[in-house]
Amino acid sequence: MPVHQKVFQVSTDGHCDVINIDGQVQRIVSESGIRNGVVNISGRGSTLGITTIEYESGCVADLQRALDSIAPPTSNYAHNARWGDNNGYSHLRSALMGTAKSYPVIEGQLGTGTWQQVIRCDFDDGARNREITVTVVGE
Amino acid sequence: MPVHQKVFQVSTDGHCDVINIDGQVQRIVSESGIRNGVVNISGRGSTLGITTIEYESGCVADLQRALDSIAPPTSNYAHNARWGDNNGYSHLRSALMGTAKSYPVIEGQLGTGTWQQVIRCDFDDGARNREITVTVVGE
Amino acid sequence: MPVHQKVFQVSTDGHCDVINIDGQVQRIVSESGIRNGVVNISGRGSTLGITTIEYESGCVADLQRALDSIAPPTSNYAHNARWGDNNGYSHLRSALMGTAKSYPVIEGQLGTGTWQQVIRCDFDDGARNREITVTVVGE
Repeated sequence: MPVHQKVFQVSTDGHCDVINIDGQVQRIVSESGIRNGVVNISGRGSTLGITTIEYESGCVADLQRALDSIAPPTSNYAHNARWGDNNGYSHLRSALMGTAKSYPVIEGQLGTGTWQQVIRCDFDDGARNREITVTVVGE
Repeated sequence: MPVHQKVFQVSTDGHCDVINIDGQVQRIVSESGIRNGVVNISGRGSTLGITTIEYESGCVADLQRALDSIAPPTSNYAHNARWGDNNGYSHLRSALMGTAKSYPVIEGQLGTGTWQQVIRCDFDDGARNREITVTVVGE
Repeated sequence: MPVHQKVFQVSTDGHCDVINIDGQVQRIVSESGIRNGVVNISGRGSTLGITTIEYESGCVADLQRALDSIAPPTSNYAHNARWGDNNGYSHLRSALMGTAKSYPVIEGQLGTGTWQQVIRCDFDDGARNREITVTVVGE
């Protein structure tokens, strides 16, 4: 099977909530039966981010603090001024981090490191349900 | 057809010109006939960026202001000192944002959100023509 | 052959060591025999980054300086406090830059620009061997 695609939902509290989705991604890669190829992990929306990190509370706190500095929630944003929203910072973080990433599939496994987990960051200013699509392409 | 690839040109004014290329990407995905897979959008060059954003003037202005802060045009750059160029900041922004992104194709559609558009940012210091390659892989 | 995958090692000094791996990527694309598709370049681990830049000493120095500003080695990191490590900044840089990127393969060539090279940045605080996986998918 050359393409295997699954969608799952993640509920989130927003406010830079960082959720470890590595287990779900690994499971979808395994069930695909694809031995070698590429897996794309993508969150639908413009106020979230996908990346990898060593998923432990210290690294997560460091990432949250850095994003607070790069795109502070309380700065003045043109998006907020124009639309009466409060999530201009969320859109900015999402554009900078990106909402999708691709990694290799090697011998049927996600080809990332032992201390490297796929995470979904929610930058929005309230609780949300997020749709994550995992697509495995290969042979 | 497992691979569908198209190249198109975008003319740009540089200076962090942000252009919405979502319509072109959607059209290439549709014409590919591929139902499920991955689409890669890539700009050729080292002074541009590809990402997604809610494409409205507020979010665009917020992104431009943030990039002016992360990589100011008027800072001292080693690239400029070495080559007599003025676009050291353009190269830096491109390396940080990345020049290509991949998203899922779901039931023949680009799998991004309603308020999420694919954009091409031109960081260079003058007008350019940019080559964008869209590659759809799937089944 | 729809998928071609190769792994190679890069030894690195850490401390934001930036290594040009463009030649290796180009060679693997060529030997794949794939004419059109996508190539994914991925480093295994949570303290490295993959991106493109014009690989000359000025641009490299500008990138290193910018990363020193975004994630200074000497700041206080929760990761360091929790684990007695010194590489909290390395994890942060990796999460922000990303450890893998994908580009098009066009007529058997890597579809990047003449002045655009694929680089592997090592953000860790000492010498390492790094495993880079290059996966070409196409036809």
